[in-house]
Amino acid sequence: MKNILIYIMLLMLFNACSTDEKVVENNNTMQKKDYAIVLHGGAGYVSADNLSQEQKDEYFNALNTAISLGENLLKEGKSAGDAVEEVIAYLENQPMFNAGIGAVFTHDGKNELDASFMDGNTMNAGAVGGVTIVKNPIKAARAVMDKSPHVLLTGKGAETFSIEQGLDTVNNKYFFNQDRWNSLQRILDEEAGQGMELDHTEHPSDKKFGTVGCVALDKNGNLAAGTSTGGMTNKKWGRIGDSPIIGAGTYADNTTCGVSCTGHGEYFIRYAVAYDLSAKMKYKGLSLNQAADEIVMKELKEVGGAGGLVALDKYGNVAMPFNTGCMFRAYVCPDERIVKIWE
Amino acid sequence: MKNILIYIMLLMLFNACSTDEKVVENNNTMQKKDYAIVLHGGAGYVSADNLSQEQKDEYFNALNTAISLGENLLKEGKSAGDAVEEVIAYLENQPMFNAGIGAVFTHDGKNELDASFMDGNTMNAGAVGGVTIVKNPIKAARAVMDKSPHVLLTGKGAETFSIEQGLDTVNNKYFFNQDRWNSLQRILDEEAGQGMELDHTEHPSDKKFGTVGCVALDKNGNLAAGTSTGGMTNKKWGRIGDSPIIGAGTYADNTTCGVSCTGHGEYFIRYAVAYDLSAKMKYKGLSLNQAADEIVMKELKEVGGAGGLVALDKYGNVAMPFNTGCMFRAYVCPDERIVKIWE
Repeated sequence: MKNILIYIMLLMLFNACSTDEKVVENNNTMQKKDYAIVLHGGAGYVSADNLSQEQKDEYFNALNTAISLGENLLKEGKSAGDAVEEVIAYLENQPMFNAGIGAVFTHDGKNELDASFMDGNTMNAGAVGGVTIVKNPIKAARAVMDKSPHVLLTGKGAETFSIEQGLDTVNNKYFFNQDRWNSLQRILDEEAGQGMELDHTEHPSDKKFGTVGCVALDKNGNLAAGTSTGGMTNKKWGRIGDSPIIGAGTYADNTTCGVSCTGHGEYFIRYAVAYDLSAKMKYKGLSLNQAADEIVMKELKEVGGAGGLVALDKYGNVAMPFNTGCMFRAYVCPDERIVKIWE
Repeated sequence: MKNILIYIMLLMLFNACSTDEKVVENNNTMQKKDYAIVLHGGAGYVSADNLSQEQKDEYFNALNTAISLGENLLKEGKSAGDAVEEVIAYLENQPMFNAGIGAVFTHDGKNELDASFMDGNTMNAGAVGGVTIVKNPIKAARAVMDKSPHVLLTGKGAETFSIEQGLDTVNNKYFFNQDRWNSLQRILDEEAGQGMELDHTEHPSDKKFGTVGCVALDKNGNLAAGTSTGGMTNKKWGRIGDSPIIGAGTYADNTTCGVSCTGHGEYFIRYAVAYDLSAKMKYKGLSLNQAADEIVMKELKEVGGAGGLVALDKYGNVAMPFNTGCMFRAYVCPDERIVKIWE
């Protein structure tokens, strides 16, 4: 009897201690799905009443088209990386999202775009910051990963690299968008009138943290993640947010999760949010949903870090928490399809 | 007897499970030192035989002067942030370190400097990337933290911000250094001859990952950390390494540790090294030294990520691991003083 109890004690102690690499699943499957893909088109405070039916249709159509595009690639056996790149490039080409052609304007009336990409199999990564003539910054980010020894390239240098790689470039005017321009003018008028800088998110007509992102799990069990953004309306001084920062806006590790963030970028940098999701799973033994909720709904919320994230674990389980009013998002795996903006 | 055994089992289980926030100290004091400060001047492969006695004296003098400067500020009751800023500014002003006036040259023959700063009490942070006219980039990084709503500013925008803040600016020629220029020319000659790009670290005359960094713990128990660099000789395309990336090159959190990294920056970004040190302490319950050794001597080493880090925990215990041949470093607390280059 005494021996049995000691044996049980040792067994319990061993199990309790081995948190490293342990994944405590919480209502999630531990059977790998054939494939899975999740995307976001930004989180924010757009209420359903503020969008016309036509606008809602446009958003849902874009989200549906994008997630189906990714699903089809994965079904065909394409890599997670290919799915992420194509989905984000599609979203960059839609003017309603703050990335690519829909990018917001800087204080100086220009468009400066950021993007990042990470491969959870090789742990390699690439990113570009502050590019102004690259049509699809996500393709530049992936090229940095695949074709350079570096992770982060910025400004004119990143553009030179993109041209050398044969990527599509455009005149900066390609990114002109009347609605985004009007947003900047309203903020500049308010600044002039009030003599102070306003957070653009406080303006009723621009209540979304623009960013698009995607995470995919392919048939081979590889995870990839990417994020692309035009940043904040009225941004100054070459400001770069979390989107091109590996560990802040984007992360992927086949042993834990892939993740893309959206929100008030400075908080996501300070709290290394994307990597923290992976760390909470790897070191604390949390499930994807436990880790994602702890970060977004508790830790970020407590310090005022508005935003959300989309993530997949290595089985294809999904987490899509946001502490704002809405997050444009879609998720597909063989037995589930979710396309939502609000709760 | 049975009840006692069940009680012991529950107690063991509880202790084993509560890894969150637990700090298992390993040969480290858990009594807070009055103050502590640690700095580095880069890690690399400079052998003792390759330095003349005069060069060694210069390095040791600079390390000693810098650490004493920081110690005196902390003794006077100055904040950890003030000590970190002044120590790094001093190191930036010494031509033998690859930061500030000693910055290496880019492929285009210019000097582009990066720096970052984090306050472990407020979890606020600031950084600049690719600045060319700011005399002391660490002061710009701290100004971004204190005087802007942002964390990372880059290029011309970061310079405009620095000028607005009244920081000292210089002509880019201020950073000209004949030895650094010769290093660039040798690498360019080799590239031209061999038709390929060489990793500058393979050149015998330039065997150090340049970076300077500092972490301090003040009398009030606040941690601060900063890092500053000229990057890699022959860097192209606006490449930015880990030094200005919060979570990669620099991190500080009063509840865990402060850390500054030096090494092959791309690896430090991919593995979110600076934040990972904090995460391993917070989530895995490792001591500072256990966590630092696991990252530098095991994980980074296995993937070829050359470099090291300096770090302090909230008690003032120090870790200074490096997986290269040397790391220029110094540590001081009331009862210990270490100034070393090699083992």
